[in-house]
Amino acid sequence: MKTRIEHDFLGEKEIPANIYYGVQTLRAVENFNITGCSINSCPEMIEALAYVKKAAAQANMELGVIPAEVAKGICAACDEIIAGNLHEQFPVDCIQGGAGTSTNMNANEVIANRALELMGHEKGEYQYCHPNNHVNCSQSTNDAYPTAFRLALYNKLTTLMDAMGYLQKGFAAKGAEFADVLKMGRTQLQDAVPMTLGQEFAAYATTLGEDIIRVREARQLITEINLGATAIGTGINAPADYSRIATTALRNMTGIDFTTSANLVEATWDTGAYVQISGVLKRVAVKLSKICNDLRLLSSGPRTGFNEINLPKMQPGSSIMPGKVNPVIPEVVNQVAYDVIGKDVTVTLAAENGQLELNVMEPVIANALFQGVDMLRRACLVLQDRCVSGITANREHCRALVENSIGIVTALNPIIGYEKSASIAKEALETGGSVYELVLKHNVLSKEKLDEILSPENMMHPRFIRN
Amino acid sequence: MKTRIEHDFLGEKEIPANIYYGVQTLRAVENFNITGCSINSCPEMIEALAYVKKAAAQANMELGVIPAEVAKGICAACDEIIAGNLHEQFPVDCIQGGAGTSTNMNANEVIANRALELMGHEKGEYQYCHPNNHVNCSQSTNDAYPTAFRLALYNKLTTLMDAMGYLQKGFAAKGAEFADVLKMGRTQLQDAVPMTLGQEFAAYATTLGEDIIRVREARQLITEINLGATAIGTGINAPADYSRIATTALRNMTGIDFTTSANLVEATWDTGAYVQISGVLKRVAVKLSKICNDLRLLSSGPRTGFNEINLPKMQPGSSIMPGKVNPVIPEVVNQVAYDVIGKDVTVTLAAENGQLELNVMEPVIANALFQGVDMLRRACLVLQDRCVSGITANREHCRALVENSIGIVTALNPIIGYEKSASIAKEALETGGSVYELVLKHNVLSKEKLDEILSPENMMHPRFIRN
Amino acid sequence: MKTRIEHDFLGEKEIPANIYYGVQTLRAVENFNITGCSINSCPEMIEALAYVKKAAAQANMELGVIPAEVAKGICAACDEIIAGNLHEQFPVDCIQGGAGTSTNMNANEVIANRALELMGHEKGEYQYCHPNNHVNCSQSTNDAYPTAFRLALYNKLTTLMDAMGYLQKGFAAKGAEFADVLKMGRTQLQDAVPMTLGQEFAAYATTLGEDIIRVREARQLITEINLGATAIGTGINAPADYSRIATTALRNMTGIDFTTSANLVEATWDTGAYVQISGVLKRVAVKLSKICNDLRLLSSGPRTGFNEINLPKMQPGSSIMPGKVNPVIPEVVNQVAYDVIGKDVTVTLAAENGQLELNVMEPVIANALFQGVDMLRRACLVLQDRCVSGITANREHCRALVENSIGIVTALNPIIGYEKSASIAKEALETGGSVYELVLKHNVLSKEKLDEILSPENMMHPRFIRN
Amino acid sequence: MKTRIEHDFLGEKEIPANIYYGVQTLRAVENFNITGCSINSCPEMIEALAYVKKAAAQANMELGVIPAEVAKGICAACDEIIAGNLHEQFPVDCIQGGAGTSTNMNANEVIANRALELMGHEKGEYQYCHPNNHVNCSQSTNDAYPTAFRLALYNKLTTLMDAMGYLQKGFAAKGAEFADVLKMGRTQLQDAVPMTLGQEFAAYATTLGEDIIRVREARQLITEINLGATAIGTGINAPADYSRIATTALRNMTGIDFTTSANLVEATWDTGAYVQISGVLKRVAVKLSKICNDLRLLSSGPRTGFNEINLPKMQPGSSIMPGKVNPVIPEVVNQVAYDVIGKDVTVTLAAENGQLELNVMEPVIANALFQGVDMLRRACLVLQDRCVSGITANREHCRALVENSIGIVTALNPIIGYEKSASIAKEALETGGSVYELVLKHNVLSKEKLDEILSPENMMHPRFIRN
Repeated sequence: MKTRIEHDFLGEKEIPANIYYGVQTLRAVENFNITGCSINSCPEMIEALAYVKKAAAQANMELGVIPAEVAKGICAACDEIIAGNLHEQFPVDCIQGGAGTSTNMNANEVIANRALELMGHEKGEYQYCHPNNHVNCSQSTNDAYPTAFRLALYNKLTTLMDAMGYLQKGFAAKGAEFADVLKMGRTQLQDAVPMTLGQEFAAYATTLGEDIIRVREARQLITEINLGATAIGTGINAPADYSRIATTALRNMTGIDFTTSANLVEATWDTGAYVQISGVLKRVAVKLSKICNDLRLLSSGPRTGFNEINLPKMQPGSSIMPGKVNPVIPEVVNQVAYDVIGKDVTVTLAAENGQLELNVMEPVIANALFQGVDMLRRACLVLQDRCVSGITANREHCRALVENSIGIVTALNPIIGYEKSASIAKEALETGGSVYELVLKHNVLSKEKLDEILSPENMMHPRFIRN
Repeated sequence: MKTRIEHDFLGEKEIPANIYYGVQTLRAVENFNITGCSINSCPEMIEALAYVKKAAAQANMELGVIPAEVAKGICAACDEIIAGNLHEQFPVDCIQGGAGTSTNMNANEVIANRALELMGHEKGEYQYCHPNNHVNCSQSTNDAYPTAFRLALYNKLTTLMDAMGYLQKGFAAKGAEFADVLKMGRTQLQDAVPMTLGQEFAAYATTLGEDIIRVREARQLITEINLGATAIGTGINAPADYSRIATTALRNMTGIDFTTSANLVEATWDTGAYVQISGVLKRVAVKLSKICNDLRLLSSGPRTGFNEINLPKMQPGSSIMPGKVNPVIPEVVNQVAYDVIGKDVTVTLAAENGQLELNVMEPVIANALFQGVDMLRRACLVLQDRCVSGITANREHCRALVENSIGIVTALNPIIGYEKSASIAKEALETGGSVYELVLKHNVLSKEKLDEILSPENMMHPRFIRN
Repeated sequence: MKTRIEHDFLGEKEIPANIYYGVQTLRAVENFNITGCSINSCPEMIEALAYVKKAAAQANMELGVIPAEVAKGICAACDEIIAGNLHEQFPVDCIQGGAGTSTNMNANEVIANRALELMGHEKGEYQYCHPNNHVNCSQSTNDAYPTAFRLALYNKLTTLMDAMGYLQKGFAAKGAEFADVLKMGRTQLQDAVPMTLGQEFAAYATTLGEDIIRVREARQLITEINLGATAIGTGINAPADYSRIATTALRNMTGIDFTTSANLVEATWDTGAYVQISGVLKRVAVKLSKICNDLRLLSSGPRTGFNEINLPKMQPGSSIMPGKVNPVIPEVVNQVAYDVIGKDVTVTLAAENGQLELNVMEPVIANALFQGVDMLRRACLVLQDRCVSGITANREHCRALVENSIGIVTALNPIIGYEKSASIAKEALETGGSVYELVLKHNVLSKEKLDEILSPENMMHPRFIRN
Repeated sequence: MKTRIEHDFLGEKEIPANIYYGVQTLRAVENFNITGCSINSCPEMIEALAYVKKAAAQANMELGVIPAEVAKGICAACDEIIAGNLHEQFPVDCIQGGAGTSTNMNANEVIANRALELMGHEKGEYQYCHPNNHVNCSQSTNDAYPTAFRLALYNKLTTLMDAMGYLQKGFAAKGAEFADVLKMGRTQLQDAVPMTLGQEFAAYATTLGEDIIRVREARQLITEINLGATAIGTGINAPADYSRIATTALRNMTGIDFTTSANLVEATWDTGAYVQISGVLKRVAVKLSKICNDLRLLSSGPRTGFNEINLPKMQPGSSIMPGKVNPVIPEVVNQVAYDVIGKDVTVTLAAENGQLELNVMEPVIANALFQGVDMLRRACLVLQDRCVSGITANREHCRALVENSIGIVTALNPIIGYEKSASIAKEALETGGSVYELVLKHNVLSKEKLDEILSPENMMHPRFIRN
């Protein structure tokens, strides 16, 4: 195998000639054998690194701190990465020490070597295009890495919002479809008062709609970037105008309204936006999990449960119990939610343990957020496509439960008072009788009045009937 | 002891005559002996309950569903509670089953009995003013309790923001005071490049400022209330205009811009806003903890640590080591942060376990948030008053560390390249020599150029020096 | 008000003459206004401090490092505290900086002053009995505080185990009572195969029994103490035999089999035992919560839920829905569980943030564990006394659900195969028919054979029927 | 492409002819596109499934409930999987709904088809060897899946213990190597009293040794299995002796001392052992993280930090700061710890949400534990091999810090009392003087006495010097 020799200030390493990354990436690969999963498992991150390096090269060229020819080589190499090439050249583990330096150097090395080739040189001839001096010019890992992280996360959150919107529409459609399915509402798993199944599903759409807004607000926080901060936010080794020009370039390339942090020292160590985003992902997870808990309850049965709705049958449910079908799709979404909730604790610990001028734990934060967003996105899609879209209602059973219920006694309160109502409820429960019959039996109200009051359809809106 | 007999549909109970609460409160006290801490440990909550009951009474009077005399009695009783009276009549445990029904009934009973007295009746003569039929008229626990919870939490968050602002100002003042204290920045606990101590403290002010904005945004979410939703959001037993009128009344009384949820069914079970607020409190906790970790690091010593700053001495630090003084204030703030972070998990679990039309776990959410806000507020105040305000800098030591550092070699990159700089750094480290002398020794740069480049003051801003 | 002047190396403070604590306690009270809850909220901890100080005094007397008269005074003062006196003299906040130094000095000061009185001196005449030189002799906070913490926690865990045992017996009794109540088991909320309600309740007893063993094992870990470690585990300022003699004294006084850590340096910073205990408390919380979730599911209804069991009615369940009764006791236990689970995260963070020779965060760990144990203990008692003991079964309904179920088709597998069984199940579900009738209709089995196979009572044990 | 048609009670599916899994696996692959990571990422789990199926087949053969020829085919297929073959035939996502049914059916189908081939039939000719009727005979997912999970987890925990032991030995070796390196101990980051660096590293070995014992204890809990429980622990469709025979077979095959749960109903839903193991993994994570925090602190510098030890240089530390080297290995271990701590919350939520007769969330528990164990194992290895083994001490610097310290004044307590000692400490701090000189200057002690007392070497053991 043909190789080339590279060195850094710790010594030399032999690199296979066809490999685009260099000595520092190789050291990182050797150092971090942790998850078995490399940073290229998040293509958005690889692309984001290329965008940042391209924006930096353009600014550096404009400011004259690197030669135009070199800058153009760098930009061309970045374009190839943005187009999806060379991603396999990013083998560093997702969880790594060094605050992202290895990820940043991986990008610097791959881009330098590809640029060298495009400029007509051999890989490794760094005198023509150097990973640190040229590709990383006017940058530090302290700003290049979090900027790329933010760009990637922004794009991933956008895809999550799309998936949430897709699921939201699915619930809204079911809300409309079930608008006339009368059923008993339950609080604390005890029979409460009537409502419609449509109201129940419409509420899921509403809650997802709110969560989309929260994700969008949180996503906005990471449009504030620290490009140009270089080491610890001082801007050392970057020309005075670099930050403005590079950020503008990045804005133009991505269409995202990036702005520069007002306090670059703070911005360089602050992980507050990630904590906030993680908290919002957790909120989304909590909502999805609550909804799936409900779907599993409402479809419990078929004969010994609530049995109000039917989930589409996706697979046989048991290796031993024939005919059993389980709510496997809500179940998997529950589990995604628990995973995301756990990741929020990981993000919190990583954020809390940042020290002084930099939070060295950003890679595990990035890993947790990237994975969490992906899993929530897939959970929304699978929930809509393989469950919600196929849900049907057991209308007659739902209505029968209402008519047989005791909770409708609530509607009598304004007429006969809470205490009298309670005694009828108690009698109904003890005797197994119906509220309707007991009211008539005790001559509490006329049949006409009672029919008006106890119409379940009338119970589902604000209303105050006088005696 | 004189007593009165009260009953509910479960039977009778004897109540001491001087007690304002009634049978349902008494049952709750007996049922929930959990924390040893009652709901009156949060006076804002007791006041908020009174505001909600007063707003409801006004709306009910206006709509003619309770007699004006009764409504006026209720309002007068509420005013006494808002003024700080009768709080000792709220003995129910903070953590309770029943989704807040016991808290709501506690308020209903106390207000009914106090209104009865004000109307010239005896406590317990509920035919004149009934806890359920009058005080709770047009309400359910499902809407009255969360509305009060939100009002109380809103007010508490306001006090937290004040305390955060107070601490923010303290850090900003130190940022100004230390603006000319040159020091080494550190990333990953390793020497990085020069900065000022003022930048470090100003960054703490900046980060707190951002967090105040996040708290304010999250606080806004709970101005959306579900008053008028009654049972499960249907509005059953409330007149059509009740929600609008009661919400307007509450808005006018409190000066808070409350609005009614667009989807009352969703609003009645949704705890997303609490999850969001808890997430933001966690964010604040993470920031405070990070800052306190830094303060403890920077003041480590006095002789074997960083020793860049001195925290005011608050108490002897050891029962055995004479003269030892510890950073006890940052330490207690760290612990508050850990407590609040734990509470976020509690809130998450409670939110996730809501089922169907109501989240029955709201009391533990309220307890966690109320305690968390209180602790963070006190932590901010104590941190400013007993620590930050008295911090002093060890200027000479800080400057000496910079001058002796290797990190300043970074400034040579643009002139001599990363690799040459690295070899000088390596030699300095191995020989114990200074970067300055080594550059001269190797004739890398002229003394004049070197002095320009290595001026630490010049390193703290964007700058690109050409060879 | 009469006062005395005390001083430490930070200056003087005026102390009311009737107060037993001294200047360092007073400073701590001023410094830590955090939770509003003082260390005397855990009487076991105050007693434990007295035991430790008494054991130390005995050892110091035996070794001749403090005068016998002083040692006797100290022991007598400790005895009063152990008897429950002077607890109000411990006003320091539960959450405090300083790694417990304030708690330790609070004990040293109160004991010194009470000893002085018993020796015929005035409070504050420390030349005769000094908080540091005598009461704290041969000790540091580094060993005295964690030893007291462990003793207190040991005793509290014992009370928790008692309460768990009490609840376990309650479930076992119900297991026996319901041994012949046939019901459908459910997996994934879907009908599975028959079982008895007795099996369900007996399983709760079994699981609690296992958890008691886990608590006992974890409790054993804290019988390893570091008394004699003094500062950072070196034993500095303690006579060579002190550790052995003091530990023996403590063992004799308490009847607990305390041993000395093999590595005192490690023992002084290690919080692993607390993390383990917290993890086990979390395990107990998870189990209790799971059981309460089940109780709420099984009692859901009364008419639109599972309705297999009835929980005793503890209080009216709604301010608006008459006759509604909620499972308030399981609900409050769920909330206790969520609180304890959150506290585990707090303990984890505190443990992770210990640095070098001591974990300064022990006070928040102690607070979390003390509160968690108390709450779990009370939850067990209230769950048994106010819920489990009064549970009744709806036998007929349970049996009817079995007879109407499809899940019993499982028993046909060994005879007719999984696929044929599945097709019968499917037909039953689609037609609403019964498995029994369909088997006969299709001439799959003789009636006799079918009766043997489908006897639910026969399904609840290992059994393999051949065709 | 050649295919075969398979069906289940939901319909038909076309399967490529060369594929060993069947219709139910295919449905699961379509249903669960969640993590992008399949169950074969844990080879121990695939092997464990094969062991369980083989043990079941042996028992079924012995009991005569499946033909010997079929049983032998099944066993042979299992042996191939145990040998590492066919693992690519397990494509179901790690996180899946259905409580592991898909994983179990994946195993049933692959084994059935491979057995068919070995028996001379075509894949899909299930009349000769059926996934449910033969491979899954006498089993349910409810027992087969958790038994396989436990076997796999047991084996993985063993490898973790090995890695922990390897790291423990590394620390012990450094403890011996540094036994004579005198240094200042620090509590609360403040100078305390002298100790040796050897004590510090030996303590890390001690603490890991304790944690290995805790892992072993926890591992023991999962040797209790529920094989033979079949559906919900009833044993339905399993011959009376099956549980005993199959468990004995599994014990013999694996050499692990498996026993049958006393209460199979409880064992089928109980996840307490997983919660316990997760809690212990969290404990290990906390310890590793604490140790890595220490290593990073002790190696902070090189010029502005503690600089007591040097970590081996593993890679350049900065893309901009030449010569900077970071503690990347401890940093990555910290991040592993945060990940594992987050996973503990995931496990907790999954355990808490088990309902009634089964915990449907086991797959996410398995995924979290498998990943957590793997990451901790790799973290231990990388920490030893790439960091601890190469640590060196800065002996002279360590000793100089001791000699210049104030903390040594502690040793004067027994002679001159805490208060006099404190005043000397205070003067030393304020004047910058040394304790030694001040004692002599004030004629507090003779030089001889002072030399004896202040010998740092004498301070590191229990000692009580009288005046």
